[in-house]
Amino acid sequence: VPLGEFDVIARYFSRPSNRADVLLGVGDDAALLLPPPGQALVAATDTLVEGRHFLPGTPADAVGHQALAVNLSDLAAMGAEPAWALLSLSMPAVDELWLERFASGLHGLAEAHGVALVGGDTVAGPLVVTVEVLGFVEPGRALRRSGARPGDVLFVSGWPGEAAAGLEALRSGALAFGSDDRRVRRFLHAEPRVRLGRLLAGRATAAMDVSDGLLGDLAKLAQASGVRAQVELGRLPIAPTLAAHHAPADCERLVLQGGDDYELLFTLPPGEATYAASIAAEAGCPLHAIGTIEAGSGVVCTREGRPEPVPVAGFDHFPRA
Amino acid sequence: VPLGEFDVIARYFSRPSNRADVLLGVGDDAALLLPPPGQALVAATDTLVEGRHFLPGTPADAVGHQALAVNLSDLAAMGAEPAWALLSLSMPAVDELWLERFASGLHGLAEAHGVALVGGDTVAGPLVVTVEVLGFVEPGRALRRSGARPGDVLFVSGWPGEAAAGLEALRSGALAFGSDDRRVRRFLHAEPRVRLGRLLAGRATAAMDVSDGLLGDLAKLAQASGVRAQVELGRLPIAPTLAAHHAPADCERLVLQGGDDYELLFTLPPGEATYAASIAAEAGCPLHAIGTIEAGSGVVCTREGRPEPVPVAGFDHFPRA
Repeated sequence: VPLGEFDVIARYFSRPSNRADVLLGVGDDAALLLPPPGQALVAATDTLVEGRHFLPGTPADAVGHQALAVNLSDLAAMGAEPAWALLSLSMPAVDELWLERFASGLHGLAEAHGVALVGGDTVAGPLVVTVEVLGFVEPGRALRRSGARPGDVLFVSGWPGEAAAGLEALRSGALAFGSDDRRVRRFLHAEPRVRLGRLLAGRATAAMDVSDGLLGDLAKLAQASGVRAQVELGRLPIAPTLAAHHAPADCERLVLQGGDDYELLFTLPPGEATYAASIAAEAGCPLHAIGTIEAGSGVVCTREGRPEPVPVAGFDHFPRA
Repeated sequence: VPLGEFDVIARYFSRPSNRADVLLGVGDDAALLLPPPGQALVAATDTLVEGRHFLPGTPADAVGHQALAVNLSDLAAMGAEPAWALLSLSMPAVDELWLERFASGLHGLAEAHGVALVGGDTVAGPLVVTVEVLGFVEPGRALRRSGARPGDVLFVSGWPGEAAAGLEALRSGALAFGSDDRRVRRFLHAEPRVRLGRLLAGRATAAMDVSDGLLGDLAKLAQASGVRAQVELGRLPIAPTLAAHHAPADCERLVLQGGDDYELLFTLPPGEATYAASIAAEAGCPLHAIGTIEAGSGVVCTREGRPEPVPVAGFDHFPRA
């Protein structure tokens, strides 16, 4: 007997939660939750469309992982602690094997971050996955895009560009979904920088996650803050995997334009720049100072201090002709 | 210049909010919100797919209205006060006229209920609309499906069946989207019973909204409560518009099987059944006692006290061959 629209959530997505703040999870008209007193609630939602945000044929566990990861990354960029998630899943037919794997990818990442799936909706339609994540942050410590000030030091976490390189290798057929290559793994199973976001809360002057490309996202941060961001190209972190497989100019393009790594861009006041080095181990990733914030507007790139024009193009996952 | 993925939310969906509890709305990585102390947070999400939950060609303002209404109805069924909403919109291309109308339908209903749109995501893809709504309820007063007890009186609000009749008339071509017929208006612009839900909070023993048909939804309530629900067919409310246009048996079918009215099903303890009459005016709709809760399981229909078999079929918006 094929599962109806209404059984899928119960069967694949309602797992008992360890969270005492979930009064009522999946199975009623809505979830009942108990936010901790004195905290701000942080809410984000992101949608993945097959053929646009993930390749047709992508392993279902990677789709489940990514649907949650992109939202956890938004919460990380606010300095928030994630708590609860809701899922809306539109899919053409009930494919139990696909659902099991999708749920396993979603729950795996949820459990790693102590997130309870508390509600959702499953409908018949094209393959479109929407996840919403709710979390908390101390109201005065939330990270925004708008707080960067001239003199601040600009940082990026980890190794941006690897995921974009993985996507390109998958699209060209150079690598397969099952490949152990680090670029493919980072594209399919990127780790949102939740711990880093918590460590930056109340310390960074501005933060956002890199989902659409470092330069494009940095332009948004600069605009929101009313400042100019200067990036020294010589300081960009080039992941060893990128250096091993790509020419230097291509590495730079991937780092500057690639998305989907869920790295964080953030700024620290000049007197606090050493804070970054002190938290890298706890954050689980290196933190690279790549530039500075200045008075003005827009983004400028320099190489050894001299301006070098770089086209700012947002990362379009699946550019169409 | 066509709008990019990133400008749509800012242009059509970021309106200044009057709510002091919105610290940060549309425009950052996530929204920052201040839940009132001592309240439970109530979270629901629902997805509408073109051709499945709304007819192709449906006026965009009706789609925007419905996407929020279905979620407000879930909150009403919990007895909650809605506060904030997030939108995820997948659409094939940026159609500014459609977006303006969609936003107007969504914002119109949001403003009527004091709801602030605080975040969202717009992506290229098939037309799929997901809305999440967040609200509050006093933890001890939340309405669940599971609290109905033998002896309770079963109620339904308003005039179920009109929306289903409107959908059928639209599908057959008997009525057009622009029709003033009440059945079409109720299908396109159903009013979620938020005020009724608030009045029932802490009073009703169980509640849920009728989205998939009265009998099908009642079976879920009975199962969640571990009871049997008995419906007296002679007591079903037949809306004057239905009686005027449909044969009696067809009226009954529409009331029992039709969805999308967002009426509430609820139970009151026998000693409190008169409470319903006392709140009808404030709730803005009549409240009809249509049956009783008994020990046992399932749903039984009676006519003048004698059991009458009625097939329990959920309301499938767009049944497929």
